[in-house]
Amino acid sequence: MTNWSDIDINAKCWIKEAAQIIKNSFSQTLDIQTKSNRNDLVTEIDKKIEQFFIGKIRRNYPGHKIIGEEGFGDSLETTAGIIWIIDPIDGTMNFVHMQRNFAISIGIYENGVGMIGLIYDVVRDELYHAIKDNGVYMNNLPLNRLEEVKLSESIIGMNASWVTENKRIDPAILAPLVKNVRGTRSYGCAALEFAYVAAGRLDAYISLRLSPWDFAAGKILIEELGGVVTDLRGKPLNLLEQCSIFIAKPGLHHEILHNYLHKGDW
Amino acid sequence: MTNWSDIDINAKCWIKEAAQIIKNSFSQTLDIQTKSNRNDLVTEIDKKIEQFFIGKIRRNYPGHKIIGEEGFGDSLETTAGIIWIIDPIDGTMNFVHMQRNFAISIGIYENGVGMIGLIYDVVRDELYHAIKDNGVYMNNLPLNRLEEVKLSESIIGMNASWVTENKRIDPAILAPLVKNVRGTRSYGCAALEFAYVAAGRLDAYISLRLSPWDFAAGKILIEELGGVVTDLRGKPLNLLEQCSIFIAKPGLHHEILHNYLHKGDW
Repeated sequence: MTNWSDIDINAKCWIKEAAQIIKNSFSQTLDIQTKSNRNDLVTEIDKKIEQFFIGKIRRNYPGHKIIGEEGFGDSLETTAGIIWIIDPIDGTMNFVHMQRNFAISIGIYENGVGMIGLIYDVVRDELYHAIKDNGVYMNNLPLNRLEEVKLSESIIGMNASWVTENKRIDPAILAPLVKNVRGTRSYGCAALEFAYVAAGRLDAYISLRLSPWDFAAGKILIEELGGVVTDLRGKPLNLLEQCSIFIAKPGLHHEILHNYLHKGDW
Repeated sequence: MTNWSDIDINAKCWIKEAAQIIKNSFSQTLDIQTKSNRNDLVTEIDKKIEQFFIGKIRRNYPGHKIIGEEGFGDSLETTAGIIWIIDPIDGTMNFVHMQRNFAISIGIYENGVGMIGLIYDVVRDELYHAIKDNGVYMNNLPLNRLEEVKLSESIIGMNASWVTENKRIDPAILAPLVKNVRGTRSYGCAALEFAYVAAGRLDAYISLRLSPWDFAAGKILIEELGGVVTDLRGKPLNLLEQCSIFIAKPGLHHEILHNYLHKGDW
C-alpha cells in the first residue's frame, strides 16, 4: 500500500529545499546556455535542481519512475506505476530575465491518475498543492471549487504569439476569443498560469504547445477543483507527449470549445 | 522655491496610508460598478483612494493642481504649474479579479517636466520611485540605467488585443514584432509594466491607449534611467490627453520604431 502522505510530506520538503538553492543562486552570475529553440533558455541551476529531485526520489522511492524537463529522468513508454513528472524551473525565461514569475512544478501520477500536484512560486513563497480527493490549498488557504463564469466577464491567460503567424494554429481561430473576453494576460509560466486558474485569478488558460512537465501538476489542481483540462480539440492530455492545452472553469470550457475552437479548420 | 523633498516624503507617506486602506478592503465585499467600457471596472475603493489623495494635496499644497482617473481633480488646459497626476488603482480589473498586480501611480510635474514618479505595487510592497536627476529606486535598491539589448533577445509587454482586430491599430503592424522578439508578456497594469521596464524585467512596453494617469509616473522613471518614452509614432506624449505608448531601452526603441512601427500605414 503506497503511503501517499509520506510522499506528500517529502515532496514538499524537497521543494522548499530546492527553492533555497534557487534563491541562493540569485546573487551569483547565471551560466545561461541556449537550447535549440532560442526561446528556451536553460541554466545550470535548472539542471542542478532536477538532479537534486531525482537523487531524493531514487533514494527514497526506488520503485518510482521520473520524467523531468532536463532529461535526467527515465524514458517511458507507458504510464504504469508511480511517475513523478518534474519541471525544476518552469518559466526559465522569466527566471533569467526577471528573477520572478517562475515555479517548481511536480505532478505525481499512479497508473495515469493524478495523485499529488505541487506548484511552488519560489519568489512569492506560494505553494499550490493538491492531493486527489482532498482539495487544493495555496499554502494553508483552501481554494474554492471553480464556478461558472460568463465569457464576456472572463480573463484568459493566452500569449499574443497564438494570434499572430505561428507554426501551430491559424491566428484567426483564437482572435475572436481575444475580442470577446474581458481581457487576456500572459505571464510566461504555464505552471503559474494553471495555479492562477486554480486560484480563480484567471478563468481559463490556452497554450499551443506544452510538455508533460509543464502541465502535470497543474492538471491535478484544476481537476480537483472541478475545472476542465483538455487539449484544444477537447481531448484528454497524454502524459507522455507534448500537446496543446486548454483549461477552463466548467461552463466556460464548453462554450469556448464549441463556439470558438470547433469552428476552426485545423 | 518649491521644497521637493517635502513633497516626496509626503507623497510616499500618503501612498503607504492609501495602500493600507486598499488592503483592508480585501476582506470586505467589493462594490463593483461598470463604466461605459465593460473592461473598465471601477470600485468604490478606487474613488475613495483618489479622494484621500486629493484631500491631502489640497490641504498641504493648495496651489498645486490635480488630475485623477476618477475625475475628482481639476479640469486642466495647460501643464503650467505643479500638477499631481494620480491613478488611485491602476489595473482595476486585476484588483477585482486577482487582488494583486495593481498599483498606485503618482507622477508630479512642474510646467510639464516630470519631477517625482511613484509606482507602488501594493501587494508585493514594492515602491518604485524617481526624483528627477537623482536616480530611480525600488524600495531602497537603486535601479541600473537601461542598456541596449538585441531585439531577438528582448521581452516586450504587449497585450494580444493589439494583434487581433481592434479599433486602434491594424493587427498586421505589430504581428511581425511578436514573431521576432524572444517573448511577450501581458500583466494588465500599465504602471507595473512601466516599472518592470525600469527594473529591466521587460525591455519594452506597448499600449495603444493610455490616459495621463496611466503613464505619468512611469514616464518619469523610464526617462530618468535613460529609456525612451514616446507614442507609437515616436512623438512625445501629451500629459493632458489619451495617447498610444511605446517605451523601450534606448537602441531597441529606435529599432522597433523604424523597422516595425514606421512600416505601417496608419
